[in-house]
Amino acid sequence: MAPTLADLKHELAVANRMCAYEGVVDAFGHVSMRHPDNPKRYFLSRSRAPELVEPDDFYEFDLDSQPVVTPKHHLYSERVIHGEIYKARPEVMSVCHHHSPAILSYCITGEKPVPVYHLGSVIGHDVPFWDQRDEFGDTNLLVRLPEEGASLARALGSHNMVLMRRHGATVVGKSVRDLVFRTIYSCRNAEYQTQAKIVGKIHSLSPGEIDMAGKIHEQPNVVSRAWEYWEMRLAHRGATPPRAKTARAAAKKPRKTVKRGNKR
Amino acid sequence: MAPTLADLKHELAVANRMCAYEGVVDAFGHVSMRHPDNPKRYFLSRSRAPELVEPDDFYEFDLDSQPVVTPKHHLYSERVIHGEIYKARPEVMSVCHHHSPAILSYCITGEKPVPVYHLGSVIGHDVPFWDQRDEFGDTNLLVRLPEEGASLARALGSHNMVLMRRHGATVVGKSVRDLVFRTIYSCRNAEYQTQAKIVGKIHSLSPGEIDMAGKIHEQPNVVSRAWEYWEMRLAHRGATPPRAKTARAAAKKPRKTVKRGNKR
Amino acid sequence: MAPTLADLKHELAVANRMCAYEGVVDAFGHVSMRHPDNPKRYFLSRSRAPELVEPDDFYEFDLDSQPVVTPKHHLYSERVIHGEIYKARPEVMSVCHHHSPAILSYCITGEKPVPVYHLGSVIGHDVPFWDQRDEFGDTNLLVRLPEEGASLARALGSHNMVLMRRHGATVVGKSVRDLVFRTIYSCRNAEYQTQAKIVGKIHSLSPGEIDMAGKIHEQPNVVSRAWEYWEMRLAHRGATPPRAKTARAAAKKPRKTVKRGNKR
Amino acid sequence: MAPTLADLKHELAVANRMCAYEGVVDAFGHVSMRHPDNPKRYFLSRSRAPELVEPDDFYEFDLDSQPVVTPKHHLYSERVIHGEIYKARPEVMSVCHHHSPAILSYCITGEKPVPVYHLGSVIGHDVPFWDQRDEFGDTNLLVRLPEEGASLARALGSHNMVLMRRHGATVVGKSVRDLVFRTIYSCRNAEYQTQAKIVGKIHSLSPGEIDMAGKIHEQPNVVSRAWEYWEMRLAHRGATPPRAKTARAAAKKPRKTVKRGNKR
Repeated sequence: MAPTLADLKHELAVANRMCAYEGVVDAFGHVSMRHPDNPKRYFLSRSRAPELVEPDDFYEFDLDSQPVVTPKHHLYSERVIHGEIYKARPEVMSVCHHHSPAILSYCITGEKPVPVYHLGSVIGHDVPFWDQRDEFGDTNLLVRLPEEGASLARALGSHNMVLMRRHGATVVGKSVRDLVFRTIYSCRNAEYQTQAKIVGKIHSLSPGEIDMAGKIHEQPNVVSRAWEYWEMRLAHRGATPPRAKTARAAAKKPRKTVKRGNKR
Repeated sequence: MAPTLADLKHELAVANRMCAYEGVVDAFGHVSMRHPDNPKRYFLSRSRAPELVEPDDFYEFDLDSQPVVTPKHHLYSERVIHGEIYKARPEVMSVCHHHSPAILSYCITGEKPVPVYHLGSVIGHDVPFWDQRDEFGDTNLLVRLPEEGASLARALGSHNMVLMRRHGATVVGKSVRDLVFRTIYSCRNAEYQTQAKIVGKIHSLSPGEIDMAGKIHEQPNVVSRAWEYWEMRLAHRGATPPRAKTARAAAKKPRKTVKRGNKR
Repeated sequence: MAPTLADLKHELAVANRMCAYEGVVDAFGHVSMRHPDNPKRYFLSRSRAPELVEPDDFYEFDLDSQPVVTPKHHLYSERVIHGEIYKARPEVMSVCHHHSPAILSYCITGEKPVPVYHLGSVIGHDVPFWDQRDEFGDTNLLVRLPEEGASLARALGSHNMVLMRRHGATVVGKSVRDLVFRTIYSCRNAEYQTQAKIVGKIHSLSPGEIDMAGKIHEQPNVVSRAWEYWEMRLAHRGATPPRAKTARAAAKKPRKTVKRGNKR
Repeated sequence: MAPTLADLKHELAVANRMCAYEGVVDAFGHVSMRHPDNPKRYFLSRSRAPELVEPDDFYEFDLDSQPVVTPKHHLYSERVIHGEIYKARPEVMSVCHHHSPAILSYCITGEKPVPVYHLGSVIGHDVPFWDQRDEFGDTNLLVRLPEEGASLARALGSHNMVLMRRHGATVVGKSVRDLVFRTIYSCRNAEYQTQAKIVGKIHSLSPGEIDMAGKIHEQPNVVSRAWEYWEMRLAHRGATPPRAKTARAAAKKPRKTVKRGNKR
C-alpha cells in the first residue's frame, strides 16, 4: 500500500530528528520535502530545532516560499534555500540545509571535499562552493532573499550538494530517505577526509569509481538498512516523533494514498 | 505575565546545567545573573558542579562579591570575576566563567579565535587575552582578589568575552539566555576553527559580516529555538533542575513579577 | 557444558552489536562465524545493520557464499569476503568486515598502521593493503565476485587483518571472541596512532615485543574480561539481543552441544 | 563519624567506575588503595573491567602483591605495579594504572606532557618516562615481575605519575579521591595539550604557577565538588556500585571506624 501524506510527513519529521541525532544539525538547520502530489509546493517545519520537529509542525509553502495558510508560528528565515532549489531542480524531492561540524572545516578553508571511501561517493564528482559575499557583499550570511536563494541554486547546478563559505552546506535528494543518506554519509566522508589529513596524503576515488560507487545506495536494502539503523537509534533515545493529531484522529478511517517521488 | 524571581532563578539553574551538558563546563566553571531588580546584587550558586546546581543553591552577593547573608556552604573562590564585571559593565546581566576544551587550545597557545561561521560572530570583532602573570606574577591562576577581578574586567573592556591564558574564558551577556547562547556558540566556533586548521588556511568573516551576523541571535525565535533544544536535551538526560522549595511552597499564591533585563 | 549452536549464534549476534556499539561498524559492516561442526559452512546475518542483528537473522552459507536454504530476505552483497577467507584459512573461525572511522585514515592515505601499544599488537607484524583497482580496475569498491573475494584473501595471506584502499578493513580470528577483541583493539590502536601523529614521531613496538604482546589476549581472563565489559555496555544501552525463537521454544528440552573452535 | 572499611571499599569501587566512565580506563586498568590500618597491605579488585568492580571484588594483598587469602578468581597480572609503589612511597595511599587515549599520544611519541592550564598542574613539575625495554629488553610490556614493578617505582621516584613507553601511565595519590582527581585531570591536561598542538605553540605554566596551582585541589570543596559531579554522572548511567554483601548484612550493627589516610 502506498504511503499516505500523513506517513510521508511523519517520515519527514523522522528525517529531521535523524539529522540531529547523527550530528548533522543542532538547534539550527532544516529538512524539507516537495509535496508528493503538487510539485509547486513543499513542506517545511515551523522554526524549531530539528530534533524537536513533529508532523504537526509542518507548513505547506509555494515555491516562492510563502506559506499557503497564515502561519501561527515563527518560520525559518532561510526558506528560500528550499523554494529556489525546488524551482531549479524538478527532480529534487527533498532538501537539507545544515552547518555540520564535519563540513564546516571545508566551508572555512575552501578546501574541496572529495570522496575518500565508497559511501562518500554520495557527494558526486564535484562539490561546488558558493560565497554569498561574491554577489551580495557583506551580509549576515543567512540566505533570506529570493535572489540569494536563486544564486545558491545556480551554484548547486546539477550537483548533489553545495558548500556555503563561512556558513554550511545544502544537500538535495530524490526522496527524503535518499536525502538523509546523502547528508549523513557526506558528513562522514568529510570527517574521514579531515582525520586522514593528520595521517598522510589523501587519495580519492577515481572518476570511474565515483560513478559506480555513487549508485550503491540505489541497490536494494542499502538506504533501507541505514534507515532502520537510524530509526533504532532514535527509538533508543526515546526520540521517535509522535503521529500527527489529524493522523491519530483518522486512524480508523480508510487511508488516502499518494504517489511516491521514487521507489525504495 | 513577566517571570517571577523564582522563574529567573530556575532559568539560571537550567543555564548552569546546559553549559555542563553541552560540554562547556565540567566540575568547575559557573554561571551568574545580576539581580533583575537591584543592579548592585547578583546571584551565583554555592560551590558546586554546574550540572548539579538547583534554584535553592543560589546566594545573593553584592558587587564586592560578599554574600548578603551568612553562607551555610562553601562558596566559589572566583566570585570576583562576576562582581567586578557587573561593576564595570552595567548592561551585562549574566556572566559565565569556564575552561571548555574548545577554548583552551587558544588559552594555551595565544592564537586568536576568529568568527569562522555566521553563528561564531557571537564572539565579536576581537577576543582580548588576559594573562594574570603580567600584572600579578606567579599565582595559582585563580581569580580570587578584587584587584585580579578588576584587571580581568579591564581586559574584557567592551568585548563579549575574554580569554585567560593557561586558564579559560569569561563570557558576558545581556540576559541569561543571551549569555548561554554566546557561550555555547563561541565554543562551537573554536572547535570548528581548530578542526579547520587541520584541513587548510582559515578564512574568517569580514568585519561587515561580523557586524551583521552578530545580530542574528537578536532575531525572533533564534535564542528561544536554541534554548528549547538545549532544554529538551537536559530533559532527555533527566537533568532538568527541580523547582526551588520556596517556589513549590508558594505555588498556590499569587505570583510577584519582576522586570526583565531584556526581551526574548 | 559445551555451548549449543543456539548459544553460539546468540554470541555472534552479540558480537555484531558490540562492534556497532564500540564504534567499529554503523549501518554497514558484518561479523560471521564458521559453522562449529561443519568447516564448509558459515553463518552470517541477512542484510541488516549489525546493531540490530539477532539470532534469528542468521543464514547458513556454503563456502561459495550461497545460502543453503532459499532466503526470504535481502542478503549482504559482500558475502564472498567471508566465504573466500574461510576457504583460504582453515583455522579462521570468525571474520569481520568494517569501515571504521579509525582505520579509514589508513585506507585513504596508504600509511601503515603499526602497533603503538601492547594491546595494539593484535594487528601483528604487518597489515597488508589490498587495492581492488589493481586487479579489477574501476569498480564500485564492493567485494561481490568470488574472484574479488579470493584476491582479497590472497592479500590477507596469513595476517590478522587486511586494509582495503578507499573502503575499509577485514579482520580474522580463531573464535568469535578472539575476532571481536582483535577488531576493537586494532581500531583503538589506529586511533592512538593518529592522535600521536599530532604530538610527535611515532615509535612502534619492536618485533620481539609484537610477538610477545600479541599473545597477551591468550592469557586467562583477558578476552573474557573485555567481553564482560562490552556485554555490560550493551546491557546498559538495552541492546542485548533476544534469544532465538527456536532456542526459546527449546528452552525446556535437553540441550544439544557442539564442539568449540577454540578454548576461552 | 569516620568512614568504616566497608565505606572505603565502596569508595574504591566508585573510583574504579569513575575512571572508566570518564574515559581513563576501558576493559583494562585498575585502581587500588592501601589498607587504611595496615600500611603493609593493599586492596585491589579481582581481574575485572573497572566499570564492573564492586566492593565484594576486592582482595587484600601484601606488598609483594600476594593475596592474603587463597583467591577464588583470576587476579590482575600487573599487581606488582601497586605493591612496589606502596613499598617505595609510604605516603601514597592509592594507585591507578591505565592506558587512557589521552596519555597514549605521549607514551607513543616520548613527547613530554606539561601543565597547560591550572588544573593540569596535578601532574607536577615533571612526568618521567619509563621504558621497560631499557632494563628488560623485549617483553610483552606487562609489568608482572617484582623487579619490573620496582624498576617502574624507581622511575616514578617522588613524582605524581610516570609514563610507560608504548603502554600507559601510573598515577599516585594521597587518598582515593586525590588519586582520582589527579588521574582524570592529568588526562584532561594531555587532551588539551594535544588539541592545542593543532592550533599553535604550547605555552606551559611557569614553575612558580605549577607550585601554586598544584595546591588548588587541597582547598576546601575542590576535590569533593568534582567527586560529587562524577558520582552524579555514574548515577545517571545507573552505574553506582552496590554495597558489599557483608556491609549490607552488618547494616544494623554498630559501625567499626578506621583512620583515614588524609583529610578531605
